Amino acid sequence: MSLSSDQFSTVYNVLSLAIASLMFTAFFLLLAQGRVAPRYRNALIVSATVCGIATYHYFRIFDNFKESYPPGETVDAAHMLSNIEFNEGYRYVDWFLTVPLLLVETVAVLALTQAASRRLLVKLVPAAALMIVLGYPGEITLETGPRVFWGVLSTLPFLYLLYVLFVELTRALDGKSAQVRAQISNLRWILLASWGVYPIAYAFPLIGGDFFGGAGGFVLRQTGYSIADIVAKALFGILIYRLARTQSIEEDPQTYGGEHALRTAV
Amino acid sequence: MSLSSDQFSTVYNVLSLAIASLMFTAFFLLLAQGRVAPRYRNALIVSATVCGIATYHYFRIFDNFKESYPPGETVDAAHMLSNIEFNEGYRYVDWFLTVPLLLVETVAVLALTQAASRRLLVKLVPAAALMIVLGYPGEITLETGPRVFWGVLSTLPFLYLLYVLFVELTRALDGKSAQVRAQISNLRWILLASWGVYPIAYAFPLIGGDFFGGAGGFVLRQTGYSIADIVAKALFGILIYRLARTQSIEEDPQTYGGEHALRTAV
Repeated sequence: MSLSSDQFSTVYNVLSLAIASLMFTAFFLLLAQGRVAPRYRNALIVSATVCGIATYHYFRIFDNFKESYPPGETVDAAHMLSNIEFNEGYRYVDWFLTVPLLLVETVAVLALTQAASRRLLVKLVPAAALMIVLGYPGEITLETGPRVFWGVLSTLPFLYLLYVLFVELTRALDGKSAQVRAQISNLRWILLASWGVYPIAYAFPLIGGDFFGGAGGFVLRQTGYSIADIVAKALFGILIYRLARTQSIEEDPQTYGGEHALRTAV
Repeated sequence: MSLSSDQFSTVYNVLSLAIASLMFTAFFLLLAQGRVAPRYRNALIVSATVCGIATYHYFRIFDNFKESYPPGETVDAAHMLSNIEFNEGYRYVDWFLTVPLLLVETVAVLALTQAASRRLLVKLVPAAALMIVLGYPGEITLETGPRVFWGVLSTLPFLYLLYVLFVELTRALDGKSAQVRAQISNLRWILLASWGVYPIAYAFPLIGGDFFGGAGGFVLRQTGYSIADIVAKALFGILIYRLARTQSIEEDPQTYGGEHALRTAV
């Protein structure tokens, strides 16, 4: 396979965008610890960990991509696949670690009792790991049959996750304010919307044809995975921070609602 | 295209200047947290994040520039463009992330209520992102028509930003002291002046001719973008710090105005 110089640049810049977004969201979440109450700080630490793990993998993917598709003779020439494989394994290793942790941070920011958190996590974490593991054999095959087979298998834990997030988790929210419940609802929809991108990108080779089966599909898949990672990890981390901050201000406006008194008139 | 060794050195040194200014402004802003009241610290954290993201991109641009224009046979020889493209995408990815964040830090340093901040940010952040996204297609084309078209489109959200910054934001400043209002006014003018450099650098290829259409225009554009970034991010970050510090001293001179009494006469 070969990529035109524009196709190469698109993937290259999106990978770099992912590095910058994820790395500095991780730093921000660590630096903003003092702006939320202690009980919410673990959610920020886990969220920073997720962004940190993803940053590591995007550095690897970026370097790997440059080696797999080296420049041609001129800047406008096509980038031909070299003797170095473009390793989709980085993404799956990343997701295997980060997707369960995303659910851990989601539960952590609710600051439930230990028992209530545990009840949710023993369901969410194994299901998330299983979802990723079952997707990988389908990703690395070029054949339609196994790709569909593993894709469908991987969808089963995904549906179970949705059930736990949208039904069981809702029951744990009694006593939260309307504003907090609305933010939690947004969090879940962002998760669902960004997770929806992965199976679509996964399915491109199934559509086949010159475009989706070739370089065009490759570029769309890499772009789709990267943007979904930015939304599901960096943007999601910022929303986790906001939710932690809203709850901190509600519970202790003296300490955390530190705006100047005069400003309240605005 | 080829660069003379002087032209190469100019861009090379300006890129390194940008790395040094941005990286150490980021460190300073983090280390100076304790010198401002808690309510202003988020502005310093966001400002450090902006400088950090820009530092990352300048490291990338610096390495990319060295690869794109490798040395000739002797130290005085021209640097010919190699087979590795000089990627202007880094700048746009950087601006896409940092320009909205610059507006976030500007609003954060005012320490308004959550609701008042939100009202400004829902206007400023999307307009800033849109301004950058609309500029990119024009930047990467060599044709005059599309460069003008995208340049004009990108100017529309810019004008809207100015309206929000100079009209709506002013209304939120009741109750600030004369000194604080003067500093906020300076901040806005620095932003406007540095942002004014970008469209000028963007327009060089439109002027065309041997100089602006060739290596001379390239050197001026890279120098202009870099200096504008230093002003709009590093210098701007220092001004944000100063404004946070002025307000902290005004509100709590015991804690933050800790200079020796004798110094006030100096």
